[in-house]
Amino acid sequence: MWCATLTPLDADGCPDHARLTAHIQRLLVAGVDGIALFGTTGEGQSFSVAERLAGLEALLDAGVDPARIIAGTACAALPETIELTRHAVACGCAGALVLPPFFFKGVSDEGVYASYARIIDAVADARLRLFLYHIPQATGVPITDAVVARIAKAYPTVLAGIKDSECNLEHSLRLLASFPNLVIFVGFEPHLPAARAAGGAGTICGIANLYPRLIRRLFDRALASDHHEDLARVERFIAALEPFPLFAAFKALQAKLTGDSAWNALRPPLAPLESPAREAWLAAAAASGIAGSDAAASS
Amino acid sequence: MWCATLTPLDADGCPDHARLTAHIQRLLVAGVDGIALFGTTGEGQSFSVAERLAGLEALLDAGVDPARIIAGTACAALPETIELTRHAVACGCAGALVLPPFFFKGVSDEGVYASYARIIDAVADARLRLFLYHIPQATGVPITDAVVARIAKAYPTVLAGIKDSECNLEHSLRLLASFPNLVIFVGFEPHLPAARAAGGAGTICGIANLYPRLIRRLFDRALASDHHEDLARVERFIAALEPFPLFAAFKALQAKLTGDSAWNALRPPLAPLESPAREAWLAAAAASGIAGSDAAASS
Repeated sequence: MWCATLTPLDADGCPDHARLTAHIQRLLVAGVDGIALFGTTGEGQSFSVAERLAGLEALLDAGVDPARIIAGTACAALPETIELTRHAVACGCAGALVLPPFFFKGVSDEGVYASYARIIDAVADARLRLFLYHIPQATGVPITDAVVARIAKAYPTVLAGIKDSECNLEHSLRLLASFPNLVIFVGFEPHLPAARAAGGAGTICGIANLYPRLIRRLFDRALASDHHEDLARVERFIAALEPFPLFAAFKALQAKLTGDSAWNALRPPLAPLESPAREAWLAAAAASGIAGSDAAASS
Repeated sequence: MWCATLTPLDADGCPDHARLTAHIQRLLVAGVDGIALFGTTGEGQSFSVAERLAGLEALLDAGVDPARIIAGTACAALPETIELTRHAVACGCAGALVLPPFFFKGVSDEGVYASYARIIDAVADARLRLFLYHIPQATGVPITDAVVARIAKAYPTVLAGIKDSECNLEHSLRLLASFPNLVIFVGFEPHLPAARAAGGAGTICGIANLYPRLIRRLFDRALASDHHEDLARVERFIAALEPFPLFAAFKALQAKLTGDSAWNALRPPLAPLESPAREAWLAAAAASGIAGSDAAASS
């Protein structure tokens, strides 16, 4: 059970290394297996290559085990993706989570495959563990089954898995059936039990920032019959979340749960929730019925 | 009449400065007023910050007048957009053409405005001439009229204009009516006469790479009654183009018109046209009836 970690910002709007480290350490204590750094939930695309290099290094300097980190290393331009991926490998990260180039739309399978092949060939390091990051609602560039199969065939020891953030269980189940040797993570928390039952590795998800103990329990009990109440909690939480901008809502709730208002900040183009939306969201989240003891700060 | 220049690649798949310079010089001789560097047609998002800095500098070193260059300076992450924009200003470019941050979808007007404000405030240079780059079919992030109005009000001496690549004439005409003080360029060539008639500044467009003399004539005669044959030629050309991936088709035709097959190369995620699509496209382009004398290489 991995957390797609939020990225706290300092007063200048830059990644706050101290808060980020403390957050990740709390998550690990709360039972998270590791974190995806600078993914979508972490506003990864809003940070420069230099900020992303420095962010990862700060975590390692603070003693976070790189085996607990999958680094989001994709940029719109391949040379920068290659630079970040090479760095993540050199740092000993558990993997690199890589979006396809996401500016152009209507990209062919050939173009998506060629992009990944270019990255793998340029990194040229047997230690690379590549996770394809499928999130077409943000990229506009789906990673088709045909592309996955072609990468798996050409680079069987490099391709480690897929983070499937399409939020479509049918798609996740098809991946699981088609690629039994790949580690398939779902991004959408309610799909965790069904995906695990079908052989899925679990989830890299956002709600784990807020309620890691709940998601841990859902993961641990996914294959047992006693996860239904927790699943219902997660579903109610997501229903409450639906009217609000996702990452702003996550950060507002994180600020509330930690008592640290600095968490409210997002970098443009994302914007924090302002009153009264902020209060409405916090009330809805509270009403969804997740216990405070499921938050990371609890012991 | 400005050209959204294609970016030729060398044998390593990197921007070929010598070919790019020669191409731009031919375009200027053929009557193009200036070029937009590293825009969408120029695969700008496929090149790293370092490649974009070096590309602009190479043009200036080769003697291209920066007053003839509008530099595409946007990245997904604002610090990199700021770096490239600052550089374009320092180089004396005619302007910076800036997409909104384009990874996140469903971004609020507040977030788009805050992004541009952040860029302008950080560049902090009275010489900045900002062109908003509206191309929602690629970015997924439209620049609404409300955002344009807010930027125009807050930064009246910085905001110079808009490149409207929505390819929706109604939208361009509304911008022209709403913002008479802004320079509005259309991206879609067939809209050039109507937009000019409504006060538009002209076009920054891709077909000018191939047939600059035709687009020049269309621009010059836009307000007269003798442009209809040229407009029909452009429309037939676009109809022929429709089934093919746009930038690959442009580059294949550029290779043919210049007799230089190196032009065929694109950087992933875009992929060159392969046979038989390439031959089909070249035949369709030839049949659309634009005279060879309208190409840049003609004298």
